[in-house]
Amino acid sequence: MAKSKFEYVRLFEFDDRCLLNTWIVVRVDGKGFHKFSTEHDYEKPNDIKALSLMTKAATSVMEEFKDICLAYGQSDEYSFVFRKETQAYSRRSAKLSTNVCSLFTSAFLYYWSEYFTSSRPLYPPVFDGRTVLYPSNQNIRDYLSWRQADCHINNLYNTTFWALILKGGLTPSEAEQKLKGTLSGDKNEILFSQFAINYNTEPDMLRKGTVLVRRKVPVALPNGGTREKSQIIQEHIDIIGDEFWDKNSHLLSIS
Amino acid sequence: MAKSKFEYVRLFEFDDRCLLNTWIVVRVDGKGFHKFSTEHDYEKPNDIKALSLMTKAATSVMEEFKDICLAYGQSDEYSFVFRKETQAYSRRSAKLSTNVCSLFTSAFLYYWSEYFTSSRPLYPPVFDGRTVLYPSNQNIRDYLSWRQADCHINNLYNTTFWALILKGGLTPSEAEQKLKGTLSGDKNEILFSQFAINYNTEPDMLRKGTVLVRRKVPVALPNGGTREKSQIIQEHIDIIGDEFWDKNSHLLSIS
Amino acid sequence: MAKSKFEYVRLFEFDDRCLLNTWIVVRVDGKGFHKFSTEHDYEKPNDIKALSLMTKAATSVMEEFKDICLAYGQSDEYSFVFRKETQAYSRRSAKLSTNVCSLFTSAFLYYWSEYFTSSRPLYPPVFDGRTVLYPSNQNIRDYLSWRQADCHINNLYNTTFWALILKGGLTPSEAEQKLKGTLSGDKNEILFSQFAINYNTEPDMLRKGTVLVRRKVPVALPNGGTREKSQIIQEHIDIIGDEFWDKNSHLLSIS
Amino acid sequence: MAKSKFEYVRLFEFDDRCLLNTWIVVRVDGKGFHKFSTEHDYEKPNDIKALSLMTKAATSVMEEFKDICLAYGQSDEYSFVFRKETQAYSRRSAKLSTNVCSLFTSAFLYYWSEYFTSSRPLYPPVFDGRTVLYPSNQNIRDYLSWRQADCHINNLYNTTFWALILKGGLTPSEAEQKLKGTLSGDKNEILFSQFAINYNTEPDMLRKGTVLVRRKVPVALPNGGTREKSQIIQEHIDIIGDEFWDKNSHLLSIS
Repeated sequence: MAKSKFEYVRLFEFDDRCLLNTWIVVRVDGKGFHKFSTEHDYEKPNDIKALSLMTKAATSVMEEFKDICLAYGQSDEYSFVFRKETQAYSRRSAKLSTNVCSLFTSAFLYYWSEYFTSSRPLYPPVFDGRTVLYPSNQNIRDYLSWRQADCHINNLYNTTFWALILKGGLTPSEAEQKLKGTLSGDKNEILFSQFAINYNTEPDMLRKGTVLVRRKVPVALPNGGTREKSQIIQEHIDIIGDEFWDKNSHLLSIS
Repeated sequence: MAKSKFEYVRLFEFDDRCLLNTWIVVRVDGKGFHKFSTEHDYEKPNDIKALSLMTKAATSVMEEFKDICLAYGQSDEYSFVFRKETQAYSRRSAKLSTNVCSLFTSAFLYYWSEYFTSSRPLYPPVFDGRTVLYPSNQNIRDYLSWRQADCHINNLYNTTFWALILKGGLTPSEAEQKLKGTLSGDKNEILFSQFAINYNTEPDMLRKGTVLVRRKVPVALPNGGTREKSQIIQEHIDIIGDEFWDKNSHLLSIS
Repeated sequence: MAKSKFEYVRLFEFDDRCLLNTWIVVRVDGKGFHKFSTEHDYEKPNDIKALSLMTKAATSVMEEFKDICLAYGQSDEYSFVFRKETQAYSRRSAKLSTNVCSLFTSAFLYYWSEYFTSSRPLYPPVFDGRTVLYPSNQNIRDYLSWRQADCHINNLYNTTFWALILKGGLTPSEAEQKLKGTLSGDKNEILFSQFAINYNTEPDMLRKGTVLVRRKVPVALPNGGTREKSQIIQEHIDIIGDEFWDKNSHLLSIS
Repeated sequence: MAKSKFEYVRLFEFDDRCLLNTWIVVRVDGKGFHKFSTEHDYEKPNDIKALSLMTKAATSVMEEFKDICLAYGQSDEYSFVFRKETQAYSRRSAKLSTNVCSLFTSAFLYYWSEYFTSSRPLYPPVFDGRTVLYPSNQNIRDYLSWRQADCHINNLYNTTFWALILKGGLTPSEAEQKLKGTLSGDKNEILFSQFAINYNTEPDMLRKGTVLVRRKVPVALPNGGTREKSQIIQEHIDIIGDEFWDKNSHLLSIS
């Protein structure tokens, strides 16, 4: 049985290395999570424990891949930003997307029972993944702004939609009808006037999603002193404006 | 907050559709499974329950993706062959590899406790994935032959290696030294003369790996009759020679 | 001046090798040749000397690239089919398309004065190029059928269009109007009844385009004997039906 | 003859659009120009008329493609830099490389007789082409520095090599032997001490290659006034240092 006789088939594999000096984003998205969230009784409009499990899974990914400098999550998706200079897996696109996606999926399921009362979901959850490249700092910021704007738009809609149903007694189709064509201001007004909800005081986690970054934090030493240690920190803040980037200028620095 | 202002970033995504009329293979591979198998006390040289769990996960993948016509697994890897004509995910390479990889990982973990005594492994297991294209029937057969030849070579080695250690009392490095430069015949001879093991009577699952195909099987009806139903069947047989392909000529026929 | 300091930029080049065991077609197309043909007084509906120059240029390409087994040309385009097994330029897509395209352009201009009365055209002619892969024999035959069907459709249209103008005294827009919505049979009928042209007896070069293949031809030896020599032969024949492929079965044979 | 029956083959074409917001370089290189230059009696070490013809051809390319903001040429190669924002040919890689390459080849041959005494070369000259992407301003500057450093290194070598042969009476292999392992300083010294050549006073075109940029130049009007017009200007200057880029800051500005 000649090994070499068949081994030529390896030559059919493509070289899919990402362009150098370019931001690499791997985004994972829940597959069929509208159905999944219903079947697992996710609270509406937002399920804090489900979002927390997503962030737990994302943290596992960042612990494994040191070259991920920032992650941003909302709803059933998480985006991982690799440093421009990363050489992880020789920048091979499929290696990056499948490893991140597999680990995210695995951790989501692994830690399920720490967030939900069941020991495991009704069936294995699935996330897909993709790799996208962004050449400039402005591009990568705009990518993240796009996801956060999406979070805002969807969350305002969902908050109003479910208030109309859960508190206003409308059916889903009546609520959908009522919201058709409304602008942000209209939804804010419905929430405030009908349900005494000031959208701007809703939890930041829901309105802004979750940002994961590494930060040096002081750690107590046995001798009473402290030392700095890099930790993954979650924040629920605006990443569209300049303030975040000014405070975290190291993220975009360097050639 | 203008959604459209940032949405241009979607245009940075690549079109990665696979060449038409070409076999698509997605292979998943355990990441760091040498370590994983040791830490989880996999039996040596082969752990039947671990292999069975792999096949359970692969079956979940085939149940989801109807266009996978055949899967082949051995050790910590599984290859999934999509029909040449598949339009699953518009043949987008990353969609196929990440979905298969995520579902495989998820099912592996989900069904863990049905095969192992622990409720879950010590940490989340990870599999990477890749998509490879093969234009001709001969190419796809050679790909599968390559994997089965690999199974044979590794299993013969491992069977002999662990016999020398577990039954022969050698240390791993002594066993490695003894096997250096040996041919297949030499290993068969060691197994037979020293340990009375006839390698050819070792279980097919270990020597040949696992093939998953769909087959019509008769299903009993309430009225006492039967009807045909497509089921995923596992076999541990040779797929290098012609016999399997003659019997399953529908796999390579068409277009 | 450190050479190495800048040389890192080479790493930004992509590996664009074509999938193995797949037909590679490079097609060159005249850029703006509608205008070019008018400015250079190409005879309408067909200019034999222009078509002959195209074939001369294509022959130069085939003489250079021994792995091109067949070329097909019509109007201002030529398709070159590389053997499935070719390793020319390591199957790098851009190398193949730019070399073929540059040589075709160069030869077209180089031999211009042998076909036209002017020493050179009014400005440098340009052809673009593309590389397309076809996995199966049926696919490559269908590609060539597509181009020959295109030749037929366009030539029948143009023959009728220009007959209406040159012999029927119509203006171009009147001719266009008259042909709107007509089928092949209608155009054949117009040609026959109005202009006594039997389209089927029009020259094969115009109706079928030009096929270039290599054929062994006997060459006279000084001693009175003959020997076989491979030569590039042009034919104006149908390549949609089976007859051509039966006669030239070597073209599609092999793995 | 059903057109649609075969037209499916168009779906086999790949989408090869270049990543957005990235510098696109198309470089054309003479194929076999060592041989070509010998057969056409190019003067050694440099043939001014051949270099001028290269620049004439490059100018034709820049006149056609308005989105090329800079070109750099030396020896038998020319690099064309498209603006980061270009949408020429929808940024399709093969379209860009083949069009530039074909036009360059065509113009090189078309204008041959204006630079050489023969009406045309002995055979059609060929150039290959490639497309390479550079994300940052530093990358594109380093690319151009790489080519200019290459020009310097080769030209110093060739100048010394041919001085040793033409003036020093050495054979080519003797000259090669003498230069083996020498540094820049050694070659400068050989030129100066043996042949009274101060390399630094050699013509800039030879030592630095040719830069083509667009510049607004005043044009006389019939009424005695002037107006600004964009013209393609050639310069033989250093593009490795900052001076050129400071003076031409518009080239790298934006986005």
